[in-house]
Amino acid sequence: EDINLIELPKIQDPRGNLSVIENGTIPFSINRVYYLYDVPSDAYRGGHAHKKLFQFLVPLSGSFDVVLKDGFGQGKIITLNKPNKGLLIVPGIWRELTNFSSGSVCLVLASEMFDEEDYIRDFAKFKSIKNS
Amino acid sequence: EDINLIELPKIQDPRGNLSVIENGTIPFSINRVYYLYDVPSDAYRGGHAHKKLFQFLVPLSGSFDVVLKDGFGQGKIITLNKPNKGLLIVPGIWRELTNFSSGSVCLVLASEMFDEEDYIRDFAKFKSIKNS
Repeated sequence: EDINLIELPKIQDPRGNLSVIENGTIPFSINRVYYLYDVPSDAYRGGHAHKKLFQFLVPLSGSFDVVLKDGFGQGKIITLNKPNKGLLIVPGIWRELTNFSSGSVCLVLASEMFDEEDYIRDFAKFKSIKNS
Repeated sequence: EDINLIELPKIQDPRGNLSVIENGTIPFSINRVYYLYDVPSDAYRGGHAHKKLFQFLVPLSGSFDVVLKDGFGQGKIITLNKPNKGLLIVPGIWRELTNFSSGSVCLVLASEMFDEEDYIRDFAKFKSIKNS
């Protein structure tokens, strides 16, 4: 499985903590930043894979679960709940986001601009691509 | 004064809100991402200017104040408290961060990698550069 948890530097200070992500920390240039917020605690997100896009997810506040599926066997569930630990998702991995805590914020850094062509949104199609 | 508040798209959804920052939203390429968290509510941050670096600050959770000084006259205080409204800080502006709410998270997108040479950390020196 491609489960790539990356621990980020955490610069601790009486004025608060600071973590940094730069080229070198993650294996792509950041072309798009987005974040999920005001997420109801029973919400469910995701349910897609990408053909080329790399993504790096960081729980900046609270926690949520990421379900990863590679098209074979069982999925894996990763709980993200530390602001200095992020999850790299490479292309060709199905992901779902669930189990958001109240007030959680999910930061996403992406390697590409938005392109609907890059999405695989149908799980049956995803499985058939992966198994072919 | 160079006060550049930028409203970001807010994609509202029953599963939570999403905001996006990409090239075109801000006038620089993102070379470094960092974020402040676990900030005590009486903490004070900043107190510096940059020679070349552009920064974009977004309050991903909670609120905080940014004090901006251009080296002339009074400073201006900007309260950031909406996850879809960020503040662009161009080079040559003194900034201080203060009045953090409990649990606040400040996301910073920067145009350059870290370079101590790019910092002006002494306010008297900053004023003399700006007034020369």
